[in-house]
Amino acid sequence: MKKIINDPSNVVPEMVSGLVRSYPQILKQIPGTEAVIRADKETMAGKVGIISGGGSGHEPTHAGFVGKGMLSAAICGQVFTSPTPDQIYEAIKAADQGKGVFMVVKNYSGDVMNFDMAKDLAEMDDIKVKSIVVDDDIAVEDSLYTQGKRGVAGTIFMHKILGAAAQNGASLDEIEELAKKVLPHINTIAVALSAATVPEVGKPGFELADDEIEYGVGIHSEPGYRREKIKPSKDLCNELLTKLDESLHLDSNKKYSLLINGMGATPLMEQYIFSNDVLNWLEQKNIKPAFMKVGNYMTSIDMAGISVTLFELADDKWLDYLNMPVETVAW
Amino acid sequence: MKKIINDPSNVVPEMVSGLVRSYPQILKQIPGTEAVIRADKETMAGKVGIISGGGSGHEPTHAGFVGKGMLSAAICGQVFTSPTPDQIYEAIKAADQGKGVFMVVKNYSGDVMNFDMAKDLAEMDDIKVKSIVVDDDIAVEDSLYTQGKRGVAGTIFMHKILGAAAQNGASLDEIEELAKKVLPHINTIAVALSAATVPEVGKPGFELADDEIEYGVGIHSEPGYRREKIKPSKDLCNELLTKLDESLHLDSNKKYSLLINGMGATPLMEQYIFSNDVLNWLEQKNIKPAFMKVGNYMTSIDMAGISVTLFELADDKWLDYLNMPVETVAW
Repeated sequence: MKKIINDPSNVVPEMVSGLVRSYPQILKQIPGTEAVIRADKETMAGKVGIISGGGSGHEPTHAGFVGKGMLSAAICGQVFTSPTPDQIYEAIKAADQGKGVFMVVKNYSGDVMNFDMAKDLAEMDDIKVKSIVVDDDIAVEDSLYTQGKRGVAGTIFMHKILGAAAQNGASLDEIEELAKKVLPHINTIAVALSAATVPEVGKPGFELADDEIEYGVGIHSEPGYRREKIKPSKDLCNELLTKLDESLHLDSNKKYSLLINGMGATPLMEQYIFSNDVLNWLEQKNIKPAFMKVGNYMTSIDMAGISVTLFELADDKWLDYLNMPVETVAW
Repeated sequence: MKKIINDPSNVVPEMVSGLVRSYPQILKQIPGTEAVIRADKETMAGKVGIISGGGSGHEPTHAGFVGKGMLSAAICGQVFTSPTPDQIYEAIKAADQGKGVFMVVKNYSGDVMNFDMAKDLAEMDDIKVKSIVVDDDIAVEDSLYTQGKRGVAGTIFMHKILGAAAQNGASLDEIEELAKKVLPHINTIAVALSAATVPEVGKPGFELADDEIEYGVGIHSEPGYRREKIKPSKDLCNELLTKLDESLHLDSNKKYSLLINGMGATPLMEQYIFSNDVLNWLEQKNIKPAFMKVGNYMTSIDMAGISVTLFELADDKWLDYLNMPVETVAW
């Protein structure tokens, strides 16, 4: 393992410190935790708090999406490990402005359990807390760490939509209703060229041969659905988009938001080439995304690979929400 | 070589197409070229055009910095290869709004020669063209492809400063004067953990052992100044910052802008940990950056490694220029 780190057991505190100190105008650390909150608390006044979090290793998710117009706070667990209920509880308290707090949780058993426990703690303080569990990965049902589908890159669309609604003054109940409506419209699928190396483990989570790829790998190196020899970008695109089409039933009369997401070690050169193939594929279906992003948004440490998210914009207001300006490190 | 590409000899056209189609609100392609220009030409009206470019493989540089408030156009050469004079000439013509065009060139022999030839062509059309050659890499004097120091990540500060000045209405002569003043204040140095693989070559530009690093490597895998065993982030930081201090003579009474730049395959986790060490190192000198960025800005395809740029803000106006809003893909 060759990494720019100091102590493998101390990567999260040092990383959170580095992030917050690099962007003091946007972020500050919640004392005694590895959670971050907006530096400008005024931007949260009178609004529902939107929080998220999970294991670290997915940077810039989640902390990179904290800021005006998006998340109020984010909790950074140990690498690929759920944050503890007490840390989540501290983030809920810090994010609450008397209007309640809404939690965006990715569907991993540890996250679901710990966010639930934190909710119970907060409710004893009379803070109203609601949540959504995001499970956008269509690759496999049930997997390592998960019952049901996994929560992956499409989660950032949920962050953005709910953050914008909160900024516009939506109530906790309205945000819950919105989250439930949005959820089934976000679908993601990935292909991996290599696995991530967790610093404390020191070796990759799985091995792929020099000419091998695996479709459907999760963001913690959970198994996918098929291994085969590396293929041209066009063919990878066709495999992933065909799966998304089977799930979302793409329709040229509908609007879509597209996210092409690098997993950490995949250069932008490859991401743009892949984007070109995705746009060609969609064009053949007479679909042109109404909103689009390409880059490293939900990574898996140093994994090489790429994911595609399609989000059907079933309500025109959602496109406005995606386009609303934010003040974050990474959106 | 395992990459998400189609044809190794066609990566640049497909990449440029993917980029432009992903961000049509910001970028459009100059017909018949692999150069891009602002989609909204109105933002250039009455202003000096600022253009840059060079070999591809450094994404998001240079095209990611085209947009209101920054570059007018950028030319994408073949991978690690200067763009041709005719492509640069087309970009000059497209960027010119009657006020002249200023070219930001990184110090590589091919780039310097081809941008000069394009300038000669443009001057025959009575377009006024001036330029600056950026050589911010303090690691080595003379190197593969270069006489004198190399132009690396600090170039994006030059793009930002000149783009802001042009946006504010500076004349071609004023921009030239500004560029000359800014140049010696930008210093960069890097450390590599692995080399880049050019698609058409198919193997890394050099080999490092599993536990080895090299200080001072360039953005095209040019040799650095020392190889040794991998060390903790703190020690890498100390090596690089000591060199920057020897060159810039850091002074706590002066203001600095800091760029921590990932080379393509280095995850943000490591970049934030390294940033924490850099900020600690600077704090011991009583220096707190007045402006800062962390991320993949000037990459070397899939190289693992990091660079540090310090830019002494000798004029307070430069900080305002850095903070001016822009509409680009990547700033």
